[in-house]
Amino acid sequence: MNYLFSDRISALKPSAIREILKATADPSVISFAAGNPAPEAFPVEEIRRITDDILTENPIGALQYSVTEGYPAFLAALADMLHSRYHSGNENDGILAVSGAQQGIDLAIRSLVNEGDTILCENPSFIGSLNCFRSYRANLVGVDLEPDGLSLEQLEAALKANPRARLIYLIPNFQNPSGITMSLAKRKAVYELAGRYNVLILEDNPYGDLRFAGEAIPTIKSMDTDNRVIYCGSFSKILSPGLRVGYVCAHKSILGKMTVAKQCNDVHTNILAQLICHKFITECDLDAHIQKLQNIYRGKSKLMMDSIDAYFSPAVTRTSPEGGLFLWCTLPEGSDMMAFCTAAAQNKVAVVPGSAFTAEEGAPTLSFRLNYSTPTDDKIVEGCQILGKLTKELF
Amino acid sequence: MNYLFSDRISALKPSAIREILKATADPSVISFAAGNPAPEAFPVEEIRRITDDILTENPIGALQYSVTEGYPAFLAALADMLHSRYHSGNENDGILAVSGAQQGIDLAIRSLVNEGDTILCENPSFIGSLNCFRSYRANLVGVDLEPDGLSLEQLEAALKANPRARLIYLIPNFQNPSGITMSLAKRKAVYELAGRYNVLILEDNPYGDLRFAGEAIPTIKSMDTDNRVIYCGSFSKILSPGLRVGYVCAHKSILGKMTVAKQCNDVHTNILAQLICHKFITECDLDAHIQKLQNIYRGKSKLMMDSIDAYFSPAVTRTSPEGGLFLWCTLPEGSDMMAFCTAAAQNKVAVVPGSAFTAEEGAPTLSFRLNYSTPTDDKIVEGCQILGKLTKELF
Repeated sequence: MNYLFSDRISALKPSAIREILKATADPSVISFAAGNPAPEAFPVEEIRRITDDILTENPIGALQYSVTEGYPAFLAALADMLHSRYHSGNENDGILAVSGAQQGIDLAIRSLVNEGDTILCENPSFIGSLNCFRSYRANLVGVDLEPDGLSLEQLEAALKANPRARLIYLIPNFQNPSGITMSLAKRKAVYELAGRYNVLILEDNPYGDLRFAGEAIPTIKSMDTDNRVIYCGSFSKILSPGLRVGYVCAHKSILGKMTVAKQCNDVHTNILAQLICHKFITECDLDAHIQKLQNIYRGKSKLMMDSIDAYFSPAVTRTSPEGGLFLWCTLPEGSDMMAFCTAAAQNKVAVVPGSAFTAEEGAPTLSFRLNYSTPTDDKIVEGCQILGKLTKELF
Repeated sequence: MNYLFSDRISALKPSAIREILKATADPSVISFAAGNPAPEAFPVEEIRRITDDILTENPIGALQYSVTEGYPAFLAALADMLHSRYHSGNENDGILAVSGAQQGIDLAIRSLVNEGDTILCENPSFIGSLNCFRSYRANLVGVDLEPDGLSLEQLEAALKANPRARLIYLIPNFQNPSGITMSLAKRKAVYELAGRYNVLILEDNPYGDLRFAGEAIPTIKSMDTDNRVIYCGSFSKILSPGLRVGYVCAHKSILGKMTVAKQCNDVHTNILAQLICHKFITECDLDAHIQKLQNIYRGKSKLMMDSIDAYFSPAVTRTSPEGGLFLWCTLPEGSDMMAFCTAAAQNKVAVVPGSAFTAEEGAPTLSFRLNYSTPTDDKIVEGCQILGKLTKELF
């Protein structure tokens, strides 16, 4: 039979990243295109021990149905962690356990945004969130990134021009794809603008703990006296993405609606996974583990930046991330970015074309994203040599 | 600040079940209101052993990101299982692993139904699915259940009257809430009608393996030469609901769109949980385990039916389920069902008012749902004695 699909799904184009990632199934390809934690970043022994303890002490609790909001002791531990690590969350806020931060973002939009409402976002931004916004047929308006975060002038102009603006989506720390961190001054200014134009802020902070250089900057949620910020955290980068556990901290009335949406979506998040995360943050040395991750990514990011500086044409510029998993390269004016990415793939190095991340689909860009967390150190050097040779031939 | 919620979420009323379930937090309340597997139905030792094996043999595979479709070996095992147990799925179909069958239903609607499109369903039907349909602002049309499944006359009339009908949602085996099983003749007739009116069928079969009486009846999916049936299966009732693993078998082009929707929703289903289910169906004695479950629920259902027959007023009728977790009682004409359910709660027995399950919200009904899988045997008898006394006072 001939299938008719919904307008919301028909509006989505196949993801450029997925097409590129298909090439990386070939084991001879060096992939700088993923966003996976390094294999050595997983605390395998601790997870095995914790999991066995849970299935010994409380097997039915781990395997039975539970409430949609999340496992109560885990929610309490998350509230404590958010408060002690980030001074975030006040007495009007609650916590919702979600099946990865992606679900937190999806449920927020499902609960708050009608078709045709405007979502403001950094340009470029994370493709998973952009596609989620598109699937709700929101009007996406990008605000260009500067080295210290999005342009305040463009943001205010966009707020003025879009009376149906409902929220501003931000990844303030080590942004995906750019690696850029928003300055404290801009965080304060964005929060003030959101209040003035009465819009919400969706703060996505999956990489916040992975700072390996510079000084920590407070979350926007920590400034949130108005309960205007919906904060999404994740265990994907500090523990395991395969477990699919994240959390949302927001005003209780917003979480109430998101909980109703979650009931319709997946009832509740995997309880065994919630309990593993709970034991990990309450019984293990989280600080020591996070320091270990910071050391891993400090080393890998430095190796990639040094290799780029050594092998790339000086006409290609790059960001200098202070944390996270990604950096962002920009080709000189007049270059054909897609042709470069295609040539890279032909030379067995996968990168993600920047056009995957533009708020306006297919908008021209000279940039591409590189990931340093997934490849081995040897492959980082080898891949940068190959890309560098190409840049020197072309630019 | 004052929050504006989306039309799709604002349309949902608080669930009557949730309100009733709140009363069941009181440990002195006997709850017939849940739908949890019996505690003795969990193969705890096997899950513990399997999980430890996975985290020993393949820890990074279990903890790292994976593809949205599901763990490839698990998908292959599911296709084999569907084929061998249910003769379901053909060469045009694929399998998508989902975070519980609820997510399969949600993604199907997200991919296939626009606002204002019509979904036909059994009346009464499962509240989780009905609320999901409502959250997409679909036009819900209920087709009354008869003892052998939904009314074919009403179904055809509804198909005629609703040119924007997109799909028929069905739980053919031991339906929630009614416990009714659709006859083979009706399954064939519904499939034929769906072809004639060119609509899809969403077949939800969470309880199919829990048959404890009567003869197995083929799934509608097993008749699906047109690839018109989207089939949802679940591990919640045969292994563990807390793990949140289900699967969808449907035409590959439908699954392609659902996969795009799933990327926007939760990226992929918990991999550790997929691997646990995979080992369980490939390395354990699934037939013996299912037989054990059937024995548990045969005993519990018989105890509840015998207790109803012994203690209830003969003016109250009940269904006789051949499997699953629920049965459905109906009060005599002119009764006030909500007043009865409230009186039951005051007498410390929780049941779910039938109005929670009507396709038209708040439509009058004389019925209520009883669950026999969660309470202990003693509580089944005691709860039925209390309810029976009430029925004899009132009817």
